[in-house]
Amino acid sequence: MHAAPNRPSSRPAIRPPTRIALTLGDPAGIGPEIVRKALVRPGRWQNAELLVIGPESQRPEGLRDGWQGVPGHAGFCATPGPDRFEMGKAQRSCGEAALAALWKGAELAKSGEAHALVTAPVCKEALHLAGEKVEGQTELLARFDGAQRYEMVGLAGPLRVMLLTRHMALAAALAALDTDAIVWHLELFHETLQSIGIPAPRLALAGLNPHAGEGGLFGDEEARILAPALERVRAAGLHVTGPQPPDTVFLDGFHGKFDGILALYHDQAFIPLKLMSQGRGLTLLAGLSFLRVSPVHGTAFDIAGQGIADETNLLAALEAGALWGAARQAR
Amino acid sequence: MHAAPNRPSSRPAIRPPTRIALTLGDPAGIGPEIVRKALVRPGRWQNAELLVIGPESQRPEGLRDGWQGVPGHAGFCATPGPDRFEMGKAQRSCGEAALAALWKGAELAKSGEAHALVTAPVCKEALHLAGEKVEGQTELLARFDGAQRYEMVGLAGPLRVMLLTRHMALAAALAALDTDAIVWHLELFHETLQSIGIPAPRLALAGLNPHAGEGGLFGDEEARILAPALERVRAAGLHVTGPQPPDTVFLDGFHGKFDGILALYHDQAFIPLKLMSQGRGLTLLAGLSFLRVSPVHGTAFDIAGQGIADETNLLAALEAGALWGAARQAR
Repeated sequence: MHAAPNRPSSRPAIRPPTRIALTLGDPAGIGPEIVRKALVRPGRWQNAELLVIGPESQRPEGLRDGWQGVPGHAGFCATPGPDRFEMGKAQRSCGEAALAALWKGAELAKSGEAHALVTAPVCKEALHLAGEKVEGQTELLARFDGAQRYEMVGLAGPLRVMLLTRHMALAAALAALDTDAIVWHLELFHETLQSIGIPAPRLALAGLNPHAGEGGLFGDEEARILAPALERVRAAGLHVTGPQPPDTVFLDGFHGKFDGILALYHDQAFIPLKLMSQGRGLTLLAGLSFLRVSPVHGTAFDIAGQGIADETNLLAALEAGALWGAARQAR
Repeated sequence: MHAAPNRPSSRPAIRPPTRIALTLGDPAGIGPEIVRKALVRPGRWQNAELLVIGPESQRPEGLRDGWQGVPGHAGFCATPGPDRFEMGKAQRSCGEAALAALWKGAELAKSGEAHALVTAPVCKEALHLAGEKVEGQTELLARFDGAQRYEMVGLAGPLRVMLLTRHMALAAALAALDTDAIVWHLELFHETLQSIGIPAPRLALAGLNPHAGEGGLFGDEEARILAPALERVRAAGLHVTGPQPPDTVFLDGFHGKFDGILALYHDQAFIPLKLMSQGRGLTLLAGLSFLRVSPVHGTAFDIAGQGIADETNLLAALEAGALWGAARQAR
């Protein structure tokens, strides 16, 4: 018998873990609590590693500084923030802390050091007290990234819905319907879905009127505004079905028939999203140079600090960040 | 030992079974097939007895004429109709047969001989060929009954949604928003729910705009049109919550927080109804002097005669007819 030669074993190259930057959000809200709970809950996010970002006072027990390089593990990155504050209340110091963590997370994601940014909730009022008069993190991230065209995508399991318009009166949303806007939203949606690992997205455009107008019987917006948009995106090679009857297209999306649906107004998107998300509602921000996923809920000040906050949505956001971050990592 | 005296045993008075009139619908559609299938499927409808109404050629095997007086059993009532026709096709003879069965069923329900009318699907085109230029059975029944104010209520499990407006362009539905119409719809909904056994219905009025306008930030219809209606119905003693944010009210309704929700336009009602009905979508017709429930689907001409039609919705309609018919019977 011959001794086996002592040579390096040939093994497949192992890709370093996907890296997710995870901000703690407003310290006075449920963010730090749901992060601590998520860290000890096994799940598909554990294919990735996390870097938890927030004030030193909120460092989850046992977390060492920086990326750990091990799937399923988390490190910590301290950003400025108060040692003392009141739970469940909008306050300037906590708004500033939330902003500091957000800027750090965005920087890591934009530079490519992190493959995904997942954000715990912030408080709009605290942001205002900290000097940022914005609606929320979406606008801050878009500004940070210099994004000209961005839009939120609501996620409820397999249902992915992008909004054409958001917080405006329904009559104003109807008046704002515009072929150009539909075209760039569909293009942005297409690119965004490609970036998370869907090479040839199957999109649908929801109609505006009952039965998508039933051939012009109920309204002319489908023919006048939606059809020209569909012509243009199809000429550009996008696969877009529609205009689809609004009362069936979301069910089809939930059953996986479409990879994404463009909804024309706030409630056309949020009625199905809230019904189908079952406590796992997520938001994906389209149009940034990096990937950002967040749970849809807020800081829940009414229950902050009681230990009863539910980390389910954050876990779902982390799973999505791990999956889609890996797709971006592979590109 | 004494012999027991031979006297009638004292037993509780037994109420005769609730009686449901069940039309076969268009013979060329799936109606007769799903009725035959439902008859042999056990379920809560069997607290009631059925009278199946349609052409002699469609008599389900073994059914004798007339009410049988036994819960869970079905009798037959022959109405005029063709012996020969083509399956899966709109034709005058079948439209006439569907009408004959419908008039008979409506007559039995209006007279009180039946406590509920459940209708299998008809074909609009066949009705037109038979001389009735209507949208469907709803209009025919309202005319038969002399109902001035009637409206459909969509049912998806515990979610019950009445529509303020139906088949019109969304812009037209916005323009048609009217305080008086909201008032009478809420009153009709209240009475209808009482008639099916809910003594003090908890109603909700959906808002029109995102977040129900968020205090006037997005649209003024809530303050201008909806609030005065709420004031009036509350003054009349109705329990109506609202205007509720449209993207959460249907989830609340599905979770049983409300007994009924008034939706302001077609898709506000049908997006949640179709998502939550999961193959058990029903319609209740409010405003008739009798109870009428139907499955929401159509004649499904594409699969008629193949033996593959699904009777689930019809069974759900029969269960609702049995439950609510018993409530009416008890009144």
